[in-house]
Amino acid sequence: MPVNANSNSLDTLAGHVDQYRLWQRHLDMARIGATPLGGVHRLPFSKEDIQSRRLFLSWADARGFASMMDDFGNLFVRREGSESGLAPVVSGSHSDTQPNGGRFDGIYGVLAAFEALEAIDDAGIVTRRPIEVVIWTAEEADAQFGVGCLGSQAHADPDKLPQLMAIRNNQDISVGTSLAEFLDDHPRVSHRQFRSPIAYYVEAHIEQGPELEAQGKTIGIVTAIQGHRSFKVQIVGEASHAGATPERLRKDALVAAMEIFSELRKVFHDPQDIVRFTVGEMDVAPGAMAVVPGSVTFTIDFRHPDPDILRTLGDQIAVVAREKAGRCEASVSELRHSSPVQFTGPVPDAILKAVESLNYSRMFLPSGAGHDARYIAELAPAGMIFIPCWRGISHNEAESAELRDMVAGVNVLANTLVQLANL
Amino acid sequence: MPVNANSNSLDTLAGHVDQYRLWQRHLDMARIGATPLGGVHRLPFSKEDIQSRRLFLSWADARGFASMMDDFGNLFVRREGSESGLAPVVSGSHSDTQPNGGRFDGIYGVLAAFEALEAIDDAGIVTRRPIEVVIWTAEEADAQFGVGCLGSQAHADPDKLPQLMAIRNNQDISVGTSLAEFLDDHPRVSHRQFRSPIAYYVEAHIEQGPELEAQGKTIGIVTAIQGHRSFKVQIVGEASHAGATPERLRKDALVAAMEIFSELRKVFHDPQDIVRFTVGEMDVAPGAMAVVPGSVTFTIDFRHPDPDILRTLGDQIAVVAREKAGRCEASVSELRHSSPVQFTGPVPDAILKAVESLNYSRMFLPSGAGHDARYIAELAPAGMIFIPCWRGISHNEAESAELRDMVAGVNVLANTLVQLANL
Repeated sequence: MPVNANSNSLDTLAGHVDQYRLWQRHLDMARIGATPLGGVHRLPFSKEDIQSRRLFLSWADARGFASMMDDFGNLFVRREGSESGLAPVVSGSHSDTQPNGGRFDGIYGVLAAFEALEAIDDAGIVTRRPIEVVIWTAEEADAQFGVGCLGSQAHADPDKLPQLMAIRNNQDISVGTSLAEFLDDHPRVSHRQFRSPIAYYVEAHIEQGPELEAQGKTIGIVTAIQGHRSFKVQIVGEASHAGATPERLRKDALVAAMEIFSELRKVFHDPQDIVRFTVGEMDVAPGAMAVVPGSVTFTIDFRHPDPDILRTLGDQIAVVAREKAGRCEASVSELRHSSPVQFTGPVPDAILKAVESLNYSRMFLPSGAGHDARYIAELAPAGMIFIPCWRGISHNEAESAELRDMVAGVNVLANTLVQLANL
Repeated sequence: MPVNANSNSLDTLAGHVDQYRLWQRHLDMARIGATPLGGVHRLPFSKEDIQSRRLFLSWADARGFASMMDDFGNLFVRREGSESGLAPVVSGSHSDTQPNGGRFDGIYGVLAAFEALEAIDDAGIVTRRPIEVVIWTAEEADAQFGVGCLGSQAHADPDKLPQLMAIRNNQDISVGTSLAEFLDDHPRVSHRQFRSPIAYYVEAHIEQGPELEAQGKTIGIVTAIQGHRSFKVQIVGEASHAGATPERLRKDALVAAMEIFSELRKVFHDPQDIVRFTVGEMDVAPGAMAVVPGSVTFTIDFRHPDPDILRTLGDQIAVVAREKAGRCEASVSELRHSSPVQFTGPVPDAILKAVESLNYSRMFLPSGAGHDARYIAELAPAGMIFIPCWRGISHNEAESAELRDMVAGVNVLANTLVQLANL
C-alpha cells in the first residue's frame, strides 16, 4: 500500500536503489555505439541515439510510465503525483555523446533519474507532484554543429528555433534536416508542448573535471555553470612551394595561426587556473607536406564563471588575431555567447539536505562544462548533482566512474526529487 | 632535305618553335583535371594522369615518334639520331600535379621538350644521337605518399623498388597497388629497361620561386638542387573536456605542437633566408571544439643546399620535439633524406652557350624544389633550365607563366638538345 513521503519513507528509499540494475543499464547503453577502445560514439541525431531511446522507452513501458515528446525530440517519461494539475519535478540529461566519447557523460544523468524514479516507485512513495525523467536532444551537437544543448535551448525558448534549425554541419546538413530524419525514425509517443510548466529541475552528471576526486568528496553540489563563448578564426595566406619560396615572401597561414594561438595563450593565462581556453580543431589547407599552408581555420572554446571577464577577455580574440596575423589576413566570428548561470534556492537547498541526511562527503563547486540545466534554469528553479569521474577525464573513451559514487548520486537524487515533488 | 646541325641550322631553329602550338597544348593539358579556380588537380597514378599520357601519345604518334615505357610507367618518346647505337639525350619532366596544383609545374618541361623536338624535326636537323622526351611517373607523390619523384628514383636505382612499392598513402593503399592499376589502364607501348643508357639529361621547369622575376631575368641556369629532409612529428597528450579540465591538469597535444613548432621556427631562422622550413600538414585529434586535443601529427619539410647544415639542423628536430613536448610525448620519424646535387659540366655549359647565342638575360641559381633531374643525375650528366613564374607562386592554382618566357625556355632547350645530341 502506497505511503506518503515523510522522513520515514525517505529513510527506506535508499534500500530500493538497485546498484546492479543501474550498472547493467549503463552496460546496455554503452553497447549502443560502442568503440573498440571502450568508449561510446553515439552522435546527436544518429541511428545509435534512436536505439538508445528505444531501449530507454522499453524500460519505461515495462514500468507503465507515460512517455511524451516535444517537437525537438526531447523525451519525457512520467510517474504521476497525487495532486492533479501540479507541474512536475523533472530530472535527466542526454543520451548522445561526443565523437568517440565516454560511457557516462549524459547517460548517467538519465539512468540515475530513471533508477531514482524506479526506487521511489518500488518504495511505494506517493508524491504530490509528478516526477519525470527527460532525455534532451542533441546536447553534444557542438562537435558537428558548433553549438550544444540544442534540445534544451529549443524547449526553453522556441523563439530560437528558426536560428537553431538553420545551423549547418561540415557536410552542409542543417539541424532542421537532421532533426526531421531523427524524428521520422523515432518511436511514437504522446505530444508535449515546448515550455510546458516545470516545477523544479535537477540534473545529475559526472563532474567531467578533477575537483571531487582531488578533494576526496563523493557529491558535488553545483553552484553555477560558467559562461561560454566560442569562436572560429579563419586565416588566409597564400599556398606556395615549400622548397622554392623564401621565408621573406611567404604568407604561411599556419605560422600566423601559431603566432595568434601563442599570443592568445599569454593573454588568457590565469595564475588562478579558472580560465578555460581551448583550441580543439585546426584545419590546414591545402594540407600537403611540400606546400606552404594557404589557409587555416581553428576554433576557440573559452569559458569563465565571471560575466565581465568572459566579455572583456573574449573580446581580445579578434584584436590579437588582427595584430598577430603577420602577412596573412585573419577574421574571427563568434559562434556562441552564453552567460554564466547561478544555481540558488530550493533545488540546491534540497540537494544539500539530501546529502546531509544520507551523510555523504560533499563540496560546492561550479560546473566547468555546459549542461542542459543551463537552459532549463530559464524555465524553472534548477540545480545539479555531480559525482566524481576518474582523473576528471571526459569527452574521451577512457571516461570512467565508480559504481559506489554512481549509487551515491542516485540516492541523493531520489531523496531530492521526493523532497521537491512534495514542495 | 635534312641538314646536319651547325651554327647555321641552329640559327634557324628558333624560327620553327611554334608559340601558338605550345600554348594550345598547355591549354589542352590544363583541361585534364581542371579545377574551378583555374588550377589542375591531376594526382599521381590517377585516371586524369592516364588521360594526359593518352593526349601526349596522340601527338607523338602523329609525328611518327616511337614510344617506350619502363616498368614504373616512365614514358619515353624518341626521335632517332643519325648514328645507331648512341645513347640518347633525354629531356622532360612530369605530367602529374599537387592536389589543386597549377597549370605549369611539370607539364611545361614535358611540352617544352616536345615543342623543341618538333621544332628540330621541322627544321630538318639531323642529330648524331637520338633525342627523347620523357614523362616521369609520380613526381608529385609526396602529397599522398610522403615521397616524391618515385618514377625517376625507380628508373635510376631499381634496387629501391621494393622499398618504394611498399609506401602507403593515408587510405592505406601502397605505391605498388597504385602503380599496378595505373599500368593496367595505360596505353600499350614498347618496353624500356630501367637504367637504359642516357647520354645527357636536361629538364626545363618553371622556377617555382621568385628570383628570376625579382632579378628581371628570362632564363635560369640551375647550379644545384638543394638537399631535402622530411619528418613526421607525432604528439600524444590526453583528450579531455574543454570546459572542465583546468590548465594544470591538461595534456594538450596542440599546445605541445605549437611550442615545438615555435621553437623550431627559432632554431631554423636564417637571416640569409636560404633555409626552407615548412609545416604543411597538421592533424588534430579528436578534433572537436569542446575537447582538449589528445593527439597531433604534423609534417616538416626542410631543405638546404649545404649538406652539413642539412644534417646538423635537421637533427635538431628530434631534440626540440623532446624538449618542448611539455606534459605530452613527442616522437619524430624521418621520411626522407636526399643530399644536395650539383649540376656542372657539359649540360649547364651547353645551356649557357645556347642562352648566349640566343641573347637572353640569365642568371645562375640553385633549385629550391626537388626535381626528377636530381635522380637522373645519378645516371648521366644533367642540368636544368628555369623560366620565371608569376610571383614565384607554385603548388597553387594561381601558378602562372608568361608565354614569352615559355618560348624563350623552348628556344634555349632546343638549342641545348641539338648541341648535346651532336657531342
